[in-house]
Amino acid sequence: MAIPEYEPLPLSPLLYRPVVERALEEDLGLAGDITTAATVPADLEWTARLNAREEGRLAGLPVALDVFHRLDPFMAVEIEKPEGADLEPDDTVAVLRGKARALLTAERTALNILTRLSGIATQTRRAVRAVGDNRTRIVCTRKTTPTLRALEKYAVRVGGGINHRFGLFDGVLIKDNHIAAAGGLRAAVERARAVLGHMTKIEVEVDNLDQLATLIDYEVDAVLLDNMKPDQLRAAVAMVRGRMLTEASGGIRIHDIPDYAGAGVDLISLGWLTHSAPGLDLGLDFDTA
Amino acid sequence: MAIPEYEPLPLSPLLYRPVVERALEEDLGLAGDITTAATVPADLEWTARLNAREEGRLAGLPVALDVFHRLDPFMAVEIEKPEGADLEPDDTVAVLRGKARALLTAERTALNILTRLSGIATQTRRAVRAVGDNRTRIVCTRKTTPTLRALEKYAVRVGGGINHRFGLFDGVLIKDNHIAAAGGLRAAVERARAVLGHMTKIEVEVDNLDQLATLIDYEVDAVLLDNMKPDQLRAAVAMVRGRMLTEASGGIRIHDIPDYAGAGVDLISLGWLTHSAPGLDLGLDFDTA
Amino acid sequence: MAIPEYEPLPLSPLLYRPVVERALEEDLGLAGDITTAATVPADLEWTARLNAREEGRLAGLPVALDVFHRLDPFMAVEIEKPEGADLEPDDTVAVLRGKARALLTAERTALNILTRLSGIATQTRRAVRAVGDNRTRIVCTRKTTPTLRALEKYAVRVGGGINHRFGLFDGVLIKDNHIAAAGGLRAAVERARAVLGHMTKIEVEVDNLDQLATLIDYEVDAVLLDNMKPDQLRAAVAMVRGRMLTEASGGIRIHDIPDYAGAGVDLISLGWLTHSAPGLDLGLDFDTA
Amino acid sequence: MAIPEYEPLPLSPLLYRPVVERALEEDLGLAGDITTAATVPADLEWTARLNAREEGRLAGLPVALDVFHRLDPFMAVEIEKPEGADLEPDDTVAVLRGKARALLTAERTALNILTRLSGIATQTRRAVRAVGDNRTRIVCTRKTTPTLRALEKYAVRVGGGINHRFGLFDGVLIKDNHIAAAGGLRAAVERARAVLGHMTKIEVEVDNLDQLATLIDYEVDAVLLDNMKPDQLRAAVAMVRGRMLTEASGGIRIHDIPDYAGAGVDLISLGWLTHSAPGLDLGLDFDTA
Amino acid sequence: MAIPEYEPLPLSPLLYRPVVERALEEDLGLAGDITTAATVPADLEWTARLNAREEGRLAGLPVALDVFHRLDPFMAVEIEKPEGADLEPDDTVAVLRGKARALLTAERTALNILTRLSGIATQTRRAVRAVGDNRTRIVCTRKTTPTLRALEKYAVRVGGGINHRFGLFDGVLIKDNHIAAAGGLRAAVERARAVLGHMTKIEVEVDNLDQLATLIDYEVDAVLLDNMKPDQLRAAVAMVRGRMLTEASGGIRIHDIPDYAGAGVDLISLGWLTHSAPGLDLGLDFDTA
Amino acid sequence: MAIPEYEPLPLSPLLYRPVVERALEEDLGLAGDITTAATVPADLEWTARLNAREEGRLAGLPVALDVFHRLDPFMAVEIEKPEGADLEPDDTVAVLRGKARALLTAERTALNILTRLSGIATQTRRAVRAVGDNRTRIVCTRKTTPTLRALEKYAVRVGGGINHRFGLFDGVLIKDNHIAAAGGLRAAVERARAVLGHMTKIEVEVDNLDQLATLIDYEVDAVLLDNMKPDQLRAAVAMVRGRMLTEASGGIRIHDIPDYAGAGVDLISLGWLTHSAPGLDLGLDFDTA
Repeated sequence: MAIPEYEPLPLSPLLYRPVVERALEEDLGLAGDITTAATVPADLEWTARLNAREEGRLAGLPVALDVFHRLDPFMAVEIEKPEGADLEPDDTVAVLRGKARALLTAERTALNILTRLSGIATQTRRAVRAVGDNRTRIVCTRKTTPTLRALEKYAVRVGGGINHRFGLFDGVLIKDNHIAAAGGLRAAVERARAVLGHMTKIEVEVDNLDQLATLIDYEVDAVLLDNMKPDQLRAAVAMVRGRMLTEASGGIRIHDIPDYAGAGVDLISLGWLTHSAPGLDLGLDFDTA
Repeated sequence: MAIPEYEPLPLSPLLYRPVVERALEEDLGLAGDITTAATVPADLEWTARLNAREEGRLAGLPVALDVFHRLDPFMAVEIEKPEGADLEPDDTVAVLRGKARALLTAERTALNILTRLSGIATQTRRAVRAVGDNRTRIVCTRKTTPTLRALEKYAVRVGGGINHRFGLFDGVLIKDNHIAAAGGLRAAVERARAVLGHMTKIEVEVDNLDQLATLIDYEVDAVLLDNMKPDQLRAAVAMVRGRMLTEASGGIRIHDIPDYAGAGVDLISLGWLTHSAPGLDLGLDFDTA
Repeated sequence: MAIPEYEPLPLSPLLYRPVVERALEEDLGLAGDITTAATVPADLEWTARLNAREEGRLAGLPVALDVFHRLDPFMAVEIEKPEGADLEPDDTVAVLRGKARALLTAERTALNILTRLSGIATQTRRAVRAVGDNRTRIVCTRKTTPTLRALEKYAVRVGGGINHRFGLFDGVLIKDNHIAAAGGLRAAVERARAVLGHMTKIEVEVDNLDQLATLIDYEVDAVLLDNMKPDQLRAAVAMVRGRMLTEASGGIRIHDIPDYAGAGVDLISLGWLTHSAPGLDLGLDFDTA
Repeated sequence: MAIPEYEPLPLSPLLYRPVVERALEEDLGLAGDITTAATVPADLEWTARLNAREEGRLAGLPVALDVFHRLDPFMAVEIEKPEGADLEPDDTVAVLRGKARALLTAERTALNILTRLSGIATQTRRAVRAVGDNRTRIVCTRKTTPTLRALEKYAVRVGGGINHRFGLFDGVLIKDNHIAAAGGLRAAVERARAVLGHMTKIEVEVDNLDQLATLIDYEVDAVLLDNMKPDQLRAAVAMVRGRMLTEASGGIRIHDIPDYAGAGVDLISLGWLTHSAPGLDLGLDFDTA
Repeated sequence: MAIPEYEPLPLSPLLYRPVVERALEEDLGLAGDITTAATVPADLEWTARLNAREEGRLAGLPVALDVFHRLDPFMAVEIEKPEGADLEPDDTVAVLRGKARALLTAERTALNILTRLSGIATQTRRAVRAVGDNRTRIVCTRKTTPTLRALEKYAVRVGGGINHRFGLFDGVLIKDNHIAAAGGLRAAVERARAVLGHMTKIEVEVDNLDQLATLIDYEVDAVLLDNMKPDQLRAAVAMVRGRMLTEASGGIRIHDIPDYAGAGVDLISLGWLTHSAPGLDLGLDFDTA
Repeated sequence: MAIPEYEPLPLSPLLYRPVVERALEEDLGLAGDITTAATVPADLEWTARLNAREEGRLAGLPVALDVFHRLDPFMAVEIEKPEGADLEPDDTVAVLRGKARALLTAERTALNILTRLSGIATQTRRAVRAVGDNRTRIVCTRKTTPTLRALEKYAVRVGGGINHRFGLFDGVLIKDNHIAAAGGLRAAVERARAVLGHMTKIEVEVDNLDQLATLIDYEVDAVLLDNMKPDQLRAAVAMVRGRMLTEASGGIRIHDIPDYAGAGVDLISLGWLTHSAPGLDLGLDFDTA
């Protein structure tokens, strides 16, 4: 892979704690875990192993551990596979020892988080690997699960991808509708430059090479080449000659990636990294014998 | 299909509004939709069509419309396909007319919700259809996206499935670990009966027919037959003879459903209805010409 | 008493902590405890005893202690009477040692919680004792203080009662108005069965034996016998013959309980356990000499 | 009654709306009102009457109506007895017409609020009436239900009482422990005067006439005469000669009030107005025939 | 200075923690401190000094330290200048040692709080000193930054001032408009007395000596003498003869204070203590060499 | 002024409504506006004028109006000076007609918001005007009031300035400490490029021309020239030759701006726009005669 794998930008506990709180609230309701409370003695201590059930990349471990620690602040955790590790089936990720009640009550919420984030990281890793020796980078989109964007964007980073905008607030992406509303490309770009801070980048979406030809003079930061085939992308990259970043987008499947990357674009953005990632199967196995 | 399709239990606005608020907060940050604010005049009004891009079942329309109405309380909406409709590619779901800024700012958040919930409903519908003429019902699990359980359980209902427990609080599900902790099946069931309210059902998980044989005397409400093949399930159903509900669970794929349903179980529960449903592709097309 | 007293289902700290936070917020406002801040040195340490002033059952101790620990995380607590204990006047429940400011500021909020929850537990215990040797169980209702339901339902459990539904979400209770709206009892029950998950119990309210006669064929889980006298209840129990649970409800006072329980019903539900329980008098005595 | 009944200070919707939201959340959980959703058609409209079942004073009507309007913003309401009215059994308080689902789902939450607040107002009214022709006023304490103080203090006002401090923040009440901590009464009062704003009143608790004799020189705003009998109170009032307000407190029952008021104190404070008020019975009757 | 400097009423952590949380949320967004995460190793530990850059009074130190402890709970802090200290340029307030990432991420939020609160304390101290040997006290108003009132009122206390009302809820201030609406001064004062608790003080605003003459008979607690010059104030004080507190207000600048205080008023209230206080310059210096 | 004045990016109601709610909560406490409730009839309607008391630029009008509409949703508002207008003393900004209680209760909170935001806009406008014919733009910093950043950054835009980063999340600003931690400038910049999304700009702070010389080769987006005098800035601009944006920062006062702008820098950033802006004096005058 052309891009050296740096440690990805971490996810601050200040960002995931409210999610953990709401997720537990949702699972506990007003009565709590009635099965466990009825059947498990309060002082029973158990050991459990967090195990991978299939191959993939681990993401969300600190969040999952926080779930366990909400239920038992003194739970002992031994990490065998660190966040970002590539897991094989039956790999033990962590060994947890603490209150049996806490282990059982936290189990599903912790696994739901881990399954989803690791699913996204695994999906992203696959896409990154498909890039091969090309220098193209894999980028996510805003097609994330509502209210979980910070976590899902983080999972993309763990998978080796980089993040596009986090929201509507941290970058300008001018699409056809904005251009129509502004009364043309020139007006849209100038107006954005006039009112926006100097730390805000501007990307413009184009559908064909004619539009690209017009755009080149405006010296924006990036161009989103929407729904173009590898041949068109190659032509586009040639036209741009490095004056702005080039991003391919639209209907690109996992097996299309080598061809698209081979066309020389700087970035390939993929909605399915987040909106359609199957969960990665992990489970908790108890040493209760 | 054996089960007549009743209108599913609706989702109260009191339940989805906080999700809409947090989702918009997440997308708007502190600066808002800077692209739209910079390029689109405040008083411009547009019409947009919410269109299906692939085949599937529509779920989440009231939630998505709430997103638009947060940005423009006066946006006019004409619904062409009601919630729960089976969509074909290019079907128009709704026509919206209102502030262009509101349409553009709400677009991605509304689509993210619709895509996810319709994806789950579509997945569920497929499973329900695979049941064929059997009387088996499709049930979801607690393997939902953290913080979105109420919405995802609703999407399962829209797809024709029914809901298992909403959380740890509204039903007892005694698994092997609970039995081990309680000191045996008898102790676990008796203890649950002693401390729980009379409106709480008790289901017990068994892995084989021997465990089932022991369980039958306890007259619990349901048995979860975990990881059994259709032949074993058939034997289990015969042993139970209607004294409790039978639920098959564990590694059942879409094409396994007919065989499992044919074994005569009352319920088939499927984690992938929620944890691995690909999003359903829908989009917003603007009449800007 | 016929029912062995199991340890009641506990109340998770995740459920009571937000109540403690809001209760302290409400008492502290923007200025805090101005009397204490003005008159008590910051580093003064005191010992205080939490004492019963009258006879009753203790409920809410962990919640009350959380109040003190919010103000002084290092306050030392020696528990002399555990949660659920039957208190006599002048019994010391706990001895607390820590910052004098924390003891004084937390005092009223902690006592308000303890007074209310112990009042409910005491009320419930009285009702449970009135059942005598009958096997009838005492059940609470949804007539709880708005926003404190989880805590008050817990106090009922501490008093030896069991919980009816926690809300509208965890059980079906079909009353006359639902039957009227559905177009008859059959339609109401069938519709509920069709759309609800298999873990949801169904109870139906009837006012007289004729209605009960019709209901018996529907095999619902429980029947609420509303406003019937002991003689009618006896007849109802005879008609039901164990095919569903029987619950007596409506205007039953403490001294009526033996007669109602003697009629053989499985459950007696009492709104006044929660909506009209007088507070149990407890106080904090300081060793300041 | 000596005190003319002014319209009490109202309760701002900004204060009760969060309570209504949390109360509905608590009753609806993640699934909502499943009985009503399963059995009642979405477009059915009904009329219901909010009726008194016993004698008492109405408090909380605007809050209760807000509950109904959350579920059906277009529900029509005709008020027959205004907030603060003295109700007789069978009095109709209001007639509501709107969605049957909304009426049924809101019913219990609305009644729980009304029952509790009217119970407190009724209790307070009884105490106020017991004052007879004396000029003494009835005051509540901080012994309120945690998180509902604003509502319960309002109910006291509706009952004709006045409010003592709302919390620890809006008045100084120096008790024996504060005096001990400060190193004497002089130090406590001086220190409070030195650090507090000029809009803060100071009241001091005394247990006997000796303490009162010392206090008189300090010219504080009020004295709380704790656990004194009417004779002592009379002596205390004579000593004070109007230089500060006199408040009797501690173990005063409803039938003690005339004697205590007759002793000439300005105020009688009663914890049981709020901590032990039985709910006032009100109900919703439907015109479903 | 005439007023002995007592330790000001402290600010409870329960009051400032939500502000710290929101302030960090605001600065971290969904991505966190991307510069620091990208460039600073996770385990690097640094020492930093919190230094004054100009002369003034320190306020907000516990709040600022809480910011650092949110990012690194184990950060070691050595306090060199306590809260309320009078700082000279280059004074070191505290030495912090902990994670370099935590120091850098918390820096701006901590300084923003400290700068603002110390700015207000410094402004207040200046006003208090300008009072000289007079016994007049400096009072703040409700002209505070929205949502930060508890913190800003605290900063005024640290500066040696005292607090007027915290809000509309803890004191009556009758202005001309209230008098007009009530139908005269007598009606306004009587009505307030009738409905308000006995712990609530009443202050009335007057614009001239005629109004003051009328007011004197009503025996309210304080009079706000609005926009009067020192000569008028002197006459007002003479008229009042200690029967109520006198407060001068309206357009009083720092250099006017001696004259106004010299007029003998009890209180001078100043909006600019809070609404126009320039921030006090403090900074964080790292020992990175 | 060289920069044409575009309409600034607006502030979404979704962003300011929570501030309005918290500000009102803070002012109302548990008892509400007791003065107004006691003295002003509930149905009295008044007209009030929002007037400027000094010269400056109006910012925050929609936020202030939202405060009034929370208290009286039907208050009629006639706007005479739109948001962003340059006000003269005695200019009427808006005429409001509605419930007298709502006008009086909302007054201070509305004015506090308006005063602060208009103060910042006025301060910014002064700085923008001082730029004269130079093409330099005025930029704010992160030195904002904790929890009010979105509003204060908006006020800067209304004043004609542009926004720097909104937080730590939407732009990279590499300072000396980051460089030290990363092990040099090259490492810091490369690491940021490797892990960050392509929409994130990178700015680097330098203290002198030597550092600038090194930086130029890295082709970052902007350079922050810290604490340089106009002569040094002129040299810096000459060295940069447009290859990155140049930002002057550090101790620049209002009367320094012409010289700094004259040095040819693209941007001047000023902390005092937000951390030390005096409030702009506005008031509400009632037509009560």
